[in-house]
Amino acid sequence: MNEFELIGHYFTSPLASRADVVLGIGDDAAILRMPDGQDLVASVDSLVAGVHFPPDLAAAAVGHRALAVNLSDLAAMGAVPAWALLALTLPVVDEKWLDDFANGFLTLARRFELELVGGNTSRGPLNITVAVHGFVPRGTALTRAGAAAGDRIYATGELGSAAAGLAARVGGRTQAMHRRLVGCFTHPQPRVACGQALRGIASAAIDVSDGFLADLGHILESSGVGAVVNVDALPISAEATAFLGRERARDAALSGGDDYELCFTVPVERMGLFEARRPRLDCQATCVGEITRERVLHCRREDGTVWRPDSTGYKHF
Amino acid sequence: MNEFELIGHYFTSPLASRADVVLGIGDDAAILRMPDGQDLVASVDSLVAGVHFPPDLAAAAVGHRALAVNLSDLAAMGAVPAWALLALTLPVVDEKWLDDFANGFLTLARRFELELVGGNTSRGPLNITVAVHGFVPRGTALTRAGAAAGDRIYATGELGSAAAGLAARVGGRTQAMHRRLVGCFTHPQPRVACGQALRGIASAAIDVSDGFLADLGHILESSGVGAVVNVDALPISAEATAFLGRERARDAALSGGDDYELCFTVPVERMGLFEARRPRLDCQATCVGEITRERVLHCRREDGTVWRPDSTGYKHF
Repeated sequence: MNEFELIGHYFTSPLASRADVVLGIGDDAAILRMPDGQDLVASVDSLVAGVHFPPDLAAAAVGHRALAVNLSDLAAMGAVPAWALLALTLPVVDEKWLDDFANGFLTLARRFELELVGGNTSRGPLNITVAVHGFVPRGTALTRAGAAAGDRIYATGELGSAAAGLAARVGGRTQAMHRRLVGCFTHPQPRVACGQALRGIASAAIDVSDGFLADLGHILESSGVGAVVNVDALPISAEATAFLGRERARDAALSGGDDYELCFTVPVERMGLFEARRPRLDCQATCVGEITRERVLHCRREDGTVWRPDSTGYKHF
Repeated sequence: MNEFELIGHYFTSPLASRADVVLGIGDDAAILRMPDGQDLVASVDSLVAGVHFPPDLAAAAVGHRALAVNLSDLAAMGAVPAWALLALTLPVVDEKWLDDFANGFLTLARRFELELVGGNTSRGPLNITVAVHGFVPRGTALTRAGAAAGDRIYATGELGSAAAGLAARVGGRTQAMHRRLVGCFTHPQPRVACGQALRGIASAAIDVSDGFLADLGHILESSGVGAVVNVDALPISAEATAFLGRERARDAALSGGDDYELCFTVPVERMGLFEARRPRLDCQATCVGEITRERVLHCRREDGTVWRPDSTGYKHF
């Protein structure tokens, strides 16, 4: 089976047919039509077996995850997903694996009306690279750069559950009680609706992939500000606390990574607008701190005492 | 050094500043502004060490090649290059290698006024995936699907030189006389100007990556036609013939791959227009055959005798 048949066979979905795709998979490149008055938002992310996911992770979860981590980047910009390109490097052609992978990928794609418009398959060590494209009304994309002193810091969903889920999985203790935690790791839910709802409200946003403190740190750096985080306010699930214990669950929430939640800042004067728009967020959003003028990131307990985090996020090298 | 510093350090070029890049490298995604009245053309391609290039290939050549093979896809669509995203998976951070790689990549990027707008680095077996984006005036992109019986088949530049160059290199015989051949392999020149000049003229186009017959085969399949190729008309360099011998040079031209030339078809009624536009092609273009109604690909000698090719192109698996 050659590259072309391979892509055609597994990734041509009869349901996928966006009106803005002039030509999809199967030529040298895709031909795409941008709507007027919109900016294009584009990002690329790779998954490497044994680095970004355990080698034994189910193929459907790998497919889901490969797209989810990219959709999470679009969510952080407030973009509406539109198109994806997939570069798949595989050691061998395993039809069952490919079928499951495609299923995981395309199921998530359909949920966001995203079309896979181009693909490339190569032989080599397993590597899945996805480029995603989305739209925002011109000039409205969220970035990391707009946070200012006094802005409130929010986190969506829950933090640390993915790290707890990975630990629960690796420990072989995937009893029923840990199934939801493991799901947080294997099937992260990109906050696409939330990101769009935050356009015009959030002053800065980022997705939590490396760990909350590390990613908040990128906002601080880009915005030229600091922050105080209240570690007692972090949205940590009861299951994560039960499984890891209170201290380790807090470390996981601050530095565990893989949550694919959003971290964003809201200026005090837009708080009314933000509260009015909460129903469109599609998830909870918890205030966990405040932006400061001093360019330092402090963690505090509820009672005001300083708290020293265990580590500050995933290092890629 | 973390992912972000890595990208920032090696790939932020002070010269790169296209007016249509609202936000480039360094946020969750790039923000890009499409010109009105244009279609977006997008493609993705991976290079895997030991599969697509010899592991000992100089880093600058790897960087050049990673972008060149993608620009070649844009060329085949007649698109003007604009933006690229780079996903780089590296086993270790080797500063010298990265510096040379970035230099090879960015030198080619600058030549085509392409800006690297997003990047991602991961740890893992060497894999370089690039997504490229370009523009064509709405509805004018070249595809594989328009060839019709009677159309003339053309190949740009020379065929088989990259395969000869690879053989010259592998054989350790990279004397001065083979330097140009080796360069055809290590530094393919994407036919970007040629592709643009062919808009409104070529009925179908593809770039020659897998081998001339295999890639022409894709045009035939997409267009629902066949072809007769005159193997004596193939543009084969004197160096390739001298190095490989006449027979093997012909095989390399038909099936060697890695040429990154264009194969395209021109309807007879547009031949005058085509000849008038030749000066804008920026390379030679040689007529090597004709499209036929019968859906078969035949190779013939100048004297009309049938010629059986040795193989029909690179198989990805």
